Amino acid sequence: MLPELDDLNSFRDALTGAAGPDTSAVQGAQERNGQLTKPPGALGRLEDLAIWYAGWRGDARPQISAPQVIVFAGNHGVTAQGVSAFPPEVTVQMVMNFEHGGAAINQLAKAAGAKMDVHALDLDCPTADFTQAAAMSEDELLRALRTGWEAVDPQADLLVVGEMGIGNTTPAAAIACALFGGDASDWTGRGTGVDDAGLANKTRVVAEGVALHGQGDGLRILQCLGGREIAAMAGAIAAARVLRIPVILDGFICTAAAACLAQLSDTALDHTVAGHQSAEGAHSAMLNKLGKEPLLSLGLRLGEGSGGALAINILKSAVACHSGMATFAEAGVTDG
Amino acid sequence: MLPELDDLNSFRDALTGAAGPDTSAVQGAQERNGQLTKPPGALGRLEDLAIWYAGWRGDARPQISAPQVIVFAGNHGVTAQGVSAFPPEVTVQMVMNFEHGGAAINQLAKAAGAKMDVHALDLDCPTADFTQAAAMSEDELLRALRTGWEAVDPQADLLVVGEMGIGNTTPAAAIACALFGGDASDWTGRGTGVDDAGLANKTRVVAEGVALHGQGDGLRILQCLGGREIAAMAGAIAAARVLRIPVILDGFICTAAAACLAQLSDTALDHTVAGHQSAEGAHSAMLNKLGKEPLLSLGLRLGEGSGGALAINILKSAVACHSGMATFAEAGVTDG
Repeated sequence: MLPELDDLNSFRDALTGAAGPDTSAVQGAQERNGQLTKPPGALGRLEDLAIWYAGWRGDARPQISAPQVIVFAGNHGVTAQGVSAFPPEVTVQMVMNFEHGGAAINQLAKAAGAKMDVHALDLDCPTADFTQAAAMSEDELLRALRTGWEAVDPQADLLVVGEMGIGNTTPAAAIACALFGGDASDWTGRGTGVDDAGLANKTRVVAEGVALHGQGDGLRILQCLGGREIAAMAGAIAAARVLRIPVILDGFICTAAAACLAQLSDTALDHTVAGHQSAEGAHSAMLNKLGKEPLLSLGLRLGEGSGGALAINILKSAVACHSGMATFAEAGVTDG
Repeated sequence: MLPELDDLNSFRDALTGAAGPDTSAVQGAQERNGQLTKPPGALGRLEDLAIWYAGWRGDARPQISAPQVIVFAGNHGVTAQGVSAFPPEVTVQMVMNFEHGGAAINQLAKAAGAKMDVHALDLDCPTADFTQAAAMSEDELLRALRTGWEAVDPQADLLVVGEMGIGNTTPAAAIACALFGGDASDWTGRGTGVDDAGLANKTRVVAEGVALHGQGDGLRILQCLGGREIAAMAGAIAAARVLRIPVILDGFICTAAAACLAQLSDTALDHTVAGHQSAEGAHSAMLNKLGKEPLLSLGLRLGEGSGGALAINILKSAVACHSGMATFAEAGVTDG
């Protein structure tokens, strides 16, 4: 069902050719929703979420029983420019933490009943500093996309992708700036906590990268300004699109990865919902550009997939109401 | 641990005399939070929630394993004024639906791993129409408060209270108007879906009730303008305050019940967090008056405790991160 990725064109073709949601399941879910024992619309966005989920799963009365959280990790040559408050060795240390179950995302995945997988991408070989050269070669991009593409469990019924990569709010800001225009300062924020001078430096780095590489389609921008974990997230989100597995987007980095796909196809992100609005300043603007309204806004700015994983239980609850509630007829309740 | 409610003064005394959170547990939780493997503050409100929860439970590294959802149902004489889009017999029909597991709150409680109890309060004996007389006698108020007071499981470690009562956005609006001032139109909304003429009629009813009864303390206002299920919610929230069981508030009706307690004591709601902002127009204003920022805003306007129950998993996730994550030292991660 998921084609092999032989080259970048096969990725583009799979994404642009992917089928949309099942319209008869959408219609069936809408009809069921109108019969449930509640005033019309009283469950608000939970109703929309359940119907959307039903369409992608091709089932008017679906269940969520196998969510998957995948965390991708990568290192970034652009950290040589001093863009992060943490040293690059933290990436591999945090991968160990993920593998030992000690990170926030481990607790959040468990609380959501999700299985979690971790993929570290060539951590000992950072991408090139994008102020000097393209971050990745075409072949490196393809390999990173493929890592994400193949990491998605075809049996999963919901996907969250997260990341770890010291310095990676910088490539994410550069991607957003290249895709959506505006000034580097519009898209550059404090990440894990740089000070004013650090923010000014980071903005300079983003501006230089965009000036050098800000042309081309979503894959070209991902190659030149991105990173391996960002490309892997894009690969996983695209695979889920082909497999009709709904995706909850996480924060700033994840949304930048998704935005590269949106540039390739208008319907590339129809199977996604924004899990949360991050505290990273430009995340809200990026979600607006993609037409995505976040489910949560709790000031998270951790990455790892944390905001996406936190939203899994919202979607599970929406689907549980939709599929578990009695109809007016079943319950003998007078329909006002 | 929970005193008997002999009269209304014993209720006032228990509420105003209740002990606050455990400051040493708060301090221990703050220290632990600073050592966890994440940048400072990167989990946003989840960090505040976990520390707040730790304080009320007296445990710097707590767990949430026994949430309780209680739904109270009552009928309202003021429905004679044509304030609801649904007929009053729906209240008892929905109680049956709760008992058979078919309502939204059943699915949401299950998705949150919470046990659920239902208490129907004299459904065959509606309160008086508050445009004509006090909704309840003092004795009826006391009995309703006691129902809520005694419904809280002392072994619960988290509480959500919800309600069902056709017409009950009208008493809730009247309570808010009496407690916080302003015009009846500031506090009156469409509830389950009245039209423009219905809204004008409802506003008139609220204004008449407040003109007749809008004096006195929180308990007097609850007696004259409230309803049995609203009083029972107030009783349960107060009992949880005494028992140091944190409470997630639901929507408009639940917040009106809580507001009556806030009038009696400045610290009455310190153990509560707002689960969500309802689509009922004045809920946001009521939360502002109480200084509560909602965790969710998903357009729900169902009642039943639905928004509070939906937020249980947010709080569980916050506590799971706090208590389950590794420290920098444990994980061998460099603390930037």
